[in-house]
Amino acid sequence: HHITSISQIAPFLNQENKFWLNITDLENMDLLEEIKNLFDIHSMTIEDILNNQERPKVEIFDHFILIVVKMLYTRNGIEDLETEQVSFVFGKNYILTFQEHSFDIFDSIRARLENPTSKIRKHGTDYFVYALLDAIVSEYYTLLEKVTDKIEMLEEVIVSEEKRVKLSEIYNQRKSIQQLKKVIWPTRELLSIIKKSDSFLIKRRTLPFINDIYEQTVEIIENLEMQRESITTLVEIYMTNISLKQNEVMKTLTIIATIFIPLTFLAGVYGMNFHFMPELKWKFGYYLVWGIFIATAVIMAFYFKRRKWF
Amino acid sequence: HHITSISQIAPFLNQENKFWLNITDLENMDLLEEIKNLFDIHSMTIEDILNNQERPKVEIFDHFILIVVKMLYTRNGIEDLETEQVSFVFGKNYILTFQEHSFDIFDSIRARLENPTSKIRKHGTDYFVYALLDAIVSEYYTLLEKVTDKIEMLEEVIVSEEKRVKLSEIYNQRKSIQQLKKVIWPTRELLSIIKKSDSFLIKRRTLPFINDIYEQTVEIIENLEMQRESITTLVEIYMTNISLKQNEVMKTLTIIATIFIPLTFLAGVYGMNFHFMPELKWKFGYYLVWGIFIATAVIMAFYFKRRKWF
Amino acid sequence: HHITSISQIAPFLNQENKFWLNITDLENMDLLEEIKNLFDIHSMTIEDILNNQERPKVEIFDHFILIVVKMLYTRNGIEDLETEQVSFVFGKNYILTFQEHSFDIFDSIRARLENPTSKIRKHGTDYFVYALLDAIVSEYYTLLEKVTDKIEMLEEVIVSEEKRVKLSEIYNQRKSIQQLKKVIWPTRELLSIIKKSDSFLIKRRTLPFINDIYEQTVEIIENLEMQRESITTLVEIYMTNISLKQNEVMKTLTIIATIFIPLTFLAGVYGMNFHFMPELKWKFGYYLVWGIFIATAVIMAFYFKRRKWF
Amino acid sequence: HHITSISQIAPFLNQENKFWLNITDLENMDLLEEIKNLFDIHSMTIEDILNNQERPKVEIFDHFILIVVKMLYTRNGIEDLETEQVSFVFGKNYILTFQEHSFDIFDSIRARLENPTSKIRKHGTDYFVYALLDAIVSEYYTLLEKVTDKIEMLEEVIVSEEKRVKLSEIYNQRKSIQQLKKVIWPTRELLSIIKKSDSFLIKRRTLPFINDIYEQTVEIIENLEMQRESITTLVEIYMTNISLKQNEVMKTLTIIATIFIPLTFLAGVYGMNFHFMPELKWKFGYYLVWGIFIATAVIMAFYFKRRKWF
Amino acid sequence: HHITSISQIAPFLNQENKFWLNITDLENMDLLEEIKNLFDIHSMTIEDILNNQERPKVEIFDHFILIVVKMLYTRNGIEDLETEQVSFVFGKNYILTFQEHSFDIFDSIRARLENPTSKIRKHGTDYFVYALLDAIVSEYYTLLEKVTDKIEMLEEVIVSEEKRVKLSEIYNQRKSIQQLKKVIWPTRELLSIIKKSDSFLIKRRTLPFINDIYEQTVEIIENLEMQRESITTLVEIYMTNISLKQNEVMKTLTIIATIFIPLTFLAGVYGMNFHFMPELKWKFGYYLVWGIFIATAVIMAFYFKRRKWF
Repeated sequence: HHITSISQIAPFLNQENKFWLNITDLENMDLLEEIKNLFDIHSMTIEDILNNQERPKVEIFDHFILIVVKMLYTRNGIEDLETEQVSFVFGKNYILTFQEHSFDIFDSIRARLENPTSKIRKHGTDYFVYALLDAIVSEYYTLLEKVTDKIEMLEEVIVSEEKRVKLSEIYNQRKSIQQLKKVIWPTRELLSIIKKSDSFLIKRRTLPFINDIYEQTVEIIENLEMQRESITTLVEIYMTNISLKQNEVMKTLTIIATIFIPLTFLAGVYGMNFHFMPELKWKFGYYLVWGIFIATAVIMAFYFKRRKWF
Repeated sequence: HHITSISQIAPFLNQENKFWLNITDLENMDLLEEIKNLFDIHSMTIEDILNNQERPKVEIFDHFILIVVKMLYTRNGIEDLETEQVSFVFGKNYILTFQEHSFDIFDSIRARLENPTSKIRKHGTDYFVYALLDAIVSEYYTLLEKVTDKIEMLEEVIVSEEKRVKLSEIYNQRKSIQQLKKVIWPTRELLSIIKKSDSFLIKRRTLPFINDIYEQTVEIIENLEMQRESITTLVEIYMTNISLKQNEVMKTLTIIATIFIPLTFLAGVYGMNFHFMPELKWKFGYYLVWGIFIATAVIMAFYFKRRKWF
Repeated sequence: HHITSISQIAPFLNQENKFWLNITDLENMDLLEEIKNLFDIHSMTIEDILNNQERPKVEIFDHFILIVVKMLYTRNGIEDLETEQVSFVFGKNYILTFQEHSFDIFDSIRARLENPTSKIRKHGTDYFVYALLDAIVSEYYTLLEKVTDKIEMLEEVIVSEEKRVKLSEIYNQRKSIQQLKKVIWPTRELLSIIKKSDSFLIKRRTLPFINDIYEQTVEIIENLEMQRESITTLVEIYMTNISLKQNEVMKTLTIIATIFIPLTFLAGVYGMNFHFMPELKWKFGYYLVWGIFIATAVIMAFYFKRRKWF
Repeated sequence: HHITSISQIAPFLNQENKFWLNITDLENMDLLEEIKNLFDIHSMTIEDILNNQERPKVEIFDHFILIVVKMLYTRNGIEDLETEQVSFVFGKNYILTFQEHSFDIFDSIRARLENPTSKIRKHGTDYFVYALLDAIVSEYYTLLEKVTDKIEMLEEVIVSEEKRVKLSEIYNQRKSIQQLKKVIWPTRELLSIIKKSDSFLIKRRTLPFINDIYEQTVEIIENLEMQRESITTLVEIYMTNISLKQNEVMKTLTIIATIFIPLTFLAGVYGMNFHFMPELKWKFGYYLVWGIFIATAVIMAFYFKRRKWF
Repeated sequence: HHITSISQIAPFLNQENKFWLNITDLENMDLLEEIKNLFDIHSMTIEDILNNQERPKVEIFDHFILIVVKMLYTRNGIEDLETEQVSFVFGKNYILTFQEHSFDIFDSIRARLENPTSKIRKHGTDYFVYALLDAIVSEYYTLLEKVTDKIEMLEEVIVSEEKRVKLSEIYNQRKSIQQLKKVIWPTRELLSIIKKSDSFLIKRRTLPFINDIYEQTVEIIENLEMQRESITTLVEIYMTNISLKQNEVMKTLTIIATIFIPLTFLAGVYGMNFHFMPELKWKFGYYLVWGIFIATAVIMAFYFKRRKWF
């Protein structure tokens, strides 16, 4: 249901059934005030929910748990990650989720909720929260895969030297990894805290599920670390390719110049206008000079060959 | 009130009301001696307050708590950070703040104090100290943002290669980050100690507030770390740009030189003054030589093209 | 025996004897369902077994232990490592192993099982699991040796400069090391957990054996770390070799060019057609110029010699 | 007093008064043997005192405490640090200090001792040891400041490119930092151990003083770390400056060469001696060629200008 | 005594006296089997002794302690380290040492044993083991000194640029350091474990001695770390020297080329054969051209001087 006033939820409150309230209008201060009073939430908690600069974290209170996480999504490729803060407050029989935009990430959960026999309906609020967190962490996985694909693509192009890659492209991937890590590190931490918490709100039965997403975050972090190392190597290869290319350019110049500069000198010598230059009158002087030209060039070519310059 | 003699505060001492004393004249040793005796402060504590080389720290005594922090401010841009030491000593019903210059950072708190219904009046000395620390940590945030902006600006200029950046500019940012970290690391530590302390002076109700600024310092440190990595990457890009530019310069030289050096040699050959050079008498000798010139140049250009040199 | 239906194992279940069930058909969901029920395994455990993206891990339950490890093997050289997930579930008198392909890695164990007096028959399921893990860790050792050999070979070639090595070859070794580490780190961790666990399924007598393979993983990780450092050094040497080569090329060019460019200039001067050039008429002008040519060349050669350019 | 025989100190031993014995003759084994027996010191302790390769350390025994520290001093500038080992052994009413050379570092303490109302006379042996350690740590501070000054000076010279700096000068600073750290790290550790020790020889009243020098060592280590990072950056700037200079040199060569090489070719062409070269007879041929020369040079200059080469 | 059969030691077994058995024939399986039975040693312990790939380690059993360490020695200089595994098993009154080759490292201990009043005879087996470990750790110290000397020598040569050093020489030192660390790290660990163990076999009186060699290993590791940093710096200096040399070469080329290329062009111009070139007929044309040549060269030389190119 889509509700507009907080009074509409009053009847559900004291029931046995649990309910989920997704609040997307974070600027409606009156509504938040009512929620605060209705569920007896600390004012600092409300501030945490409203401040979208918050680090992912969990705070365990006596009668409710606050979880602040970050959804990551991208519209124009992995280089351009955007962040959306999602906060969960859940007690024994209610889950409140707070987000600025009503995203499609919870659609799969809504779908599962409609199935009356689904696990998500039968289990408690902690399982529900697990399902929400699972959806978010799965998104991280997708982003990790995108970054990995991009880096592997860059690697292939750089190693094969097919196309010119700008260093800033590699750099953008490093930035994406940094952003991902910045979000996933504290998420891992908060999952670890939930795992070890002994709040009555987290049932023993749910712990294996929480542990599962915790291990996923560990896995993602390890992979990000590996990708970061790959990038360092990529930059190295990139730089070496530049050096190798420059070396090749230098060699070409040196070979041409060192062969022709002495020859040009010799041609210049016999182009001098001294009145007395005996060689000029020799019958085969010209052919002799050509002989010297060719011999010099051949000898130099051999020298370069032996030095493995080409 | 602005008081001049320590005797003026005596009547407030044994009252229920708490009071705030802001001491800016740190060279008035008599005053400090009187304060020391009045509030029963350890002589080492007074030394800590006077020594402005002190690291940020907290010391928890039986009847009072000493907090030494550093205010950071800048007059001429983020490259030129200055440090000002502020010390707090607070007991059950008094707060003493010590600073060398009476800065405007506490003005917002004075303003809040004038409002008789403000939280800051109603809560205890610990909340007051929280408010002071919060004002200081907020300043750190502002500085972090300035550094981040500057680095992003540098990044944009370097990646786009629009303008020449001196490496020392990047280096100055790294220095600012280092200075910020040097101040914020121990601040984070001291907040962590306050959080965990079980002094009766820190009430349970204030802990969420302390935790909030603690988390802010964690956030700032993480961001500084990210900025530091960005700088490392910037230097890398900077160096690669130099290498790429040099490569381009080399290529230009090589292309021009390798095309024209052999041609100049050939021109030199036919500039020789041998008496017997049959080609010189050929009718189309000159045109033939031009043909050789053009053919050589075209072949070389093709060769460089195929090697993707331009 | 090769069994097709789960009912075939029922008679063994309540016996004193232990048995080993190797399940290779991970897509037969019915079979897995039956196993799950028969051995009372958590559904999350089955999911862990099926998900081949799982990190190596151990989970200790009341009546059974789950171990997920990764076998590493290579078909086309060390650069192309493949991973195969193997999961063990073992209780007091049964061991279930799950793998996608029936590999020959367990063949040695089958052979030992056929010997009726072998330790592996006499000891409990924990010893059996040790034998399986030992076979896998030995495989890691073999791979480590292959990587080490390859790196040493590369090192020799690079240091001796015999043959050209592509930087990507060094890079591939770094990747293999990364992959090995990614698998062995969590394996080490899981062995450490088994060592410290106080599950009744791990008998005190087996602990020295577990400790032995644990120490092997520590050894492998240390060696991998050393190899990683070797690679960093190799890249450094590689880059320096390029620089040294470029230096040598530059020197050759500079020597030839700086000797002949001034000489060519001088030859050009006496090739000018001014009507009044007294030197041209000198009787020994031409020989004098040659004298200057040779003297200049010799002086320059001496200069370069003194500067240790060749 | 300057004493020569151990028997001279016997009368002081069983008194209430504490006394300080500064032993500088570490080769007088008999004296050491007597001291060993008189104060009941472990033979390993004496060995620690004699071995001047010892790491700074503290050893807490039942009836005395051994502290081994290193004094650092320099005669010819910060690049040339020398180390002197000083050991303290102190019990309830005696302090023994052992050093090879009688240094002036303890002079200030002697001066304070002569003042009969000084704290150092009134407090116990632990305060005395604090005063000695404080004198040593202050020396470290002085050295830190020297290194910092030197690095800042180097930085200024390198950034401004005023003068040529040899890389080995930077390298020497790094070495000094390394040496300082090697001494200060274990000193920090030993102070931390003293702080936490519950020996009756360290009175509660002295702890804030010990803590103060402990915090100084922390401060020094942090600053050394910062200086080390500065050096890394300095080396980077140094290398970039070399690259930039080389780039500038290359550009100059390329601009001159690419402008004049084609022109020289053209001049060479019209210096050829073909009998039939129609242009040579043109009336304005010569002026036309000059036109081509100038046009080519101007066009190339524009091209280089647009590419921002100068 | 040199014994050949295990039965020869039986009479010593139940005596008060302790004895030392040095076993060098590790392939005599029967002997080992007898020893195993005689001293009641775990079969895994025997395997540890035989496997010479074992990491240094200590294992504390109820009635004996196993220590596996590595002796390092070198025959052809520090670049070529060899490893020899030595294992100690000791109980209340026996010490068994196992080594492949009977090395001279224990000779000093044998010598001390022959002195009937030596400490090593009077103290227990733990002191004996200390003496053995001390001999081995002293060897490490010697090797550390050799590496340090070699690195300092390399440093001197590289900084002074006296002789050409191959990068692989520096690299070999890094390798030696790595090998030393690989052996000493776990040795430090095992000494730390012995220090903290509460086995009745390690008497309280021996602890200071164990602590002494423990601190020596810490010292060695710190020094190795410092040497490793020195090597990193050396490589940096090495690379910079190459860059500086290349820069110098480039400058020479550029100075010569940029001075003479324009002059050669001008000489080429007046070598053209145009029928109408007025300058050629000028009386002082030739001298004028020489004037231009000299002026150009001087101006350029000034320009390069101002740019500090030479």
